[in-house]
Amino acid sequence: MTSAAPVIVVAPDSFKGSLAAPVICESIREGLRRVWPHADVRACPMADGGEGTLDAVLSAAGGAASRLVHSVRGADGAPRNVAYGVFDRPEGETAVIEVAQIVGITDDAAMRTPVLDRTTTGLGELLRSLLDDGITRFMIGLGGSSTNDGGAGMLQALGVRLARRDGSVVAPTPRGLAELESVDARDLDARVAQAQITIMSDVSNPLCGPRGATAVFGPQKGVAAHDVETIDATLAAFAREVERALGRSVANAPGAGAAGGLGFALQLVGARFASGAGIVAELVGLDAALQGADWAIAGEGRSDMQTLLGKAPLVVARRAAQAGVPVSLLSGSIDDAALPAFAAHFAGCFALPAGPASLASCIADAPRLLADRAEQMGRLLDAARMK
Amino acid sequence: MTSAAPVIVVAPDSFKGSLAAPVICESIREGLRRVWPHADVRACPMADGGEGTLDAVLSAAGGAASRLVHSVRGADGAPRNVAYGVFDRPEGETAVIEVAQIVGITDDAAMRTPVLDRTTTGLGELLRSLLDDGITRFMIGLGGSSTNDGGAGMLQALGVRLARRDGSVVAPTPRGLAELESVDARDLDARVAQAQITIMSDVSNPLCGPRGATAVFGPQKGVAAHDVETIDATLAAFAREVERALGRSVANAPGAGAAGGLGFALQLVGARFASGAGIVAELVGLDAALQGADWAIAGEGRSDMQTLLGKAPLVVARRAAQAGVPVSLLSGSIDDAALPAFAAHFAGCFALPAGPASLASCIADAPRLLADRAEQMGRLLDAARMK
Repeated sequence: MTSAAPVIVVAPDSFKGSLAAPVICESIREGLRRVWPHADVRACPMADGGEGTLDAVLSAAGGAASRLVHSVRGADGAPRNVAYGVFDRPEGETAVIEVAQIVGITDDAAMRTPVLDRTTTGLGELLRSLLDDGITRFMIGLGGSSTNDGGAGMLQALGVRLARRDGSVVAPTPRGLAELESVDARDLDARVAQAQITIMSDVSNPLCGPRGATAVFGPQKGVAAHDVETIDATLAAFAREVERALGRSVANAPGAGAAGGLGFALQLVGARFASGAGIVAELVGLDAALQGADWAIAGEGRSDMQTLLGKAPLVVARRAAQAGVPVSLLSGSIDDAALPAFAAHFAGCFALPAGPASLASCIADAPRLLADRAEQMGRLLDAARMK
Repeated sequence: MTSAAPVIVVAPDSFKGSLAAPVICESIREGLRRVWPHADVRACPMADGGEGTLDAVLSAAGGAASRLVHSVRGADGAPRNVAYGVFDRPEGETAVIEVAQIVGITDDAAMRTPVLDRTTTGLGELLRSLLDDGITRFMIGLGGSSTNDGGAGMLQALGVRLARRDGSVVAPTPRGLAELESVDARDLDARVAQAQITIMSDVSNPLCGPRGATAVFGPQKGVAAHDVETIDATLAAFAREVERALGRSVANAPGAGAAGGLGFALQLVGARFASGAGIVAELVGLDAALQGADWAIAGEGRSDMQTLLGKAPLVVARRAAQAGVPVSLLSGSIDDAALPAFAAHFAGCFALPAGPASLASCIADAPRLLADRAEQMGRLLDAARMK
């Protein structure tokens, strides 16, 4: 750091359940400005496709993106005003959708409906509405969903007919799919196949089996232990029928088990999987921000060995390395056991507390602590100018 | 930091009640060597005259100092083997004495004797023995004492006669001094007046009154609230008598109230007060270590606004600034409220925990946490070499 007005890229993920990435960027900027009042602090709020993805992208895009709201059904079937983004991109208008906004596990009202009766119809409704608006590019963040319907709700809303033997339509839910006998995809909205749909997710699980959606993610959504096997078998049968109808087999593809099987249904209609954090990095213009930067700061709520499995800080570290910019980590907390592995990626790893502290106090004071820690990191780095 | 083998001065105070300064130096060195295997890490364990002073000086002096042991009376009058140091200095052999080693508040056996009956006789005995050995230079760290005798025990051991009206000698304790009627200093060891005695202490309180030793420090030594006034009056009367006998008046001098009035008695026999940390800095050779250094690290158990009242990290910061060496703070914990004031002195302030943690776990893991934090600070500073 040789300049009194350094260029610093601030690219934290959200602190899940605590602080949104744009707010974190602001706090860090405040701290850095105490060291360098004229620093060029470039905020690149990051996300991994889950909670906070929409906020991060909208905040980073500024005038290039709009936050819009549309009424679709939530996981319980009742209407919800859900937020999404439309983004001006060089390759064309792109919608950014966060599944957690539609069928989020933090939607208390929907969570009162049993998981057996929750569905992803709302995502299909939103896609259809956006296709009606002429949008053909979609980036869909999977993560934080409350559903376990294999994406049946979305497929039905897009025109796939899911029926009993007598031809009557089943509910696109784990309970309804148990009665499924036939699938007819002839009325699937043809525009879907033409669309470019990118799934943002870090989940690599298949749809079914011991590593599948129901077994691994079902319990946290309310699937009872004694129902796991039955629901898993129901989704497997559903998958066979709908794969046959669409002439494509993706149930065992990596990520089919994401978001209760939305990863399966979306891949079935042609979506491709991509690293959530990698896509967000592109959407927020991380590479451009890193050009000519002196230093970068990544971060997340808690950093541990999982971080190195492609989470946002690792994506930031890799791109910073490509740009020749040293990058430090500033997270809510850090598992010291991961520090030896982090040393290859980060120029110093720092956490929020300035002494013994409870998790609750760290969360309550997070904006102030972020500013203080960023300031102190800056003061240390600035010391290198003295020598 | 422009070298792959930087010169780094590590000058922490002890973490009181937890970790000695030389151990802290070792942990920090270990962390720094992970970043720069060939770093020249210069350990300057610091202290402020209280607990840890002797360890710091002996560790830093290496072959130039000896740790010796002598049997003298503890605060309860029972014999103790107490450690002290003898130090080869350019100006002559110097004894380093830590009062806490003789009448320490952590001496559980002595603490079972009521504070009314505790005394500083042992310090007088040790001084006399060292004078017998031909030593004429003394550095005495006050701090962490369990006594409140106004230094009467030390004076008596050095030859001052403290008597009742009938000529019988009183116990040199708060209880005994209540019966004091006459003081005779004619037999005071004449070598004391010739000796150079330096008191290491940061206490500036007078002997008596509302800011005096009994009112301010008595309660933590076991003085009952209802006894404060009586004991304070006893010490005031004692001071008048002994001052008259020695023809000198120091009861209101700054620091007379240090170590239960040892600050009074020592000044009465010619000792001069000096900043504990400043003296230790000289004894450990801090200035020489800072010559040509790239970076320094100061620290202590807990840093807050008190730190700026002359504690060890401030002394290190000032001397580093004079040498043109940036200095960072690495403490067990830091009061964030002090950070704005610290910014003028430290190139970044850092604390031990890497996330929410209890005080107990920070203390238990302190050596590992120190190494990890020092490593991360080093990695951040090293990043400046990249640009």
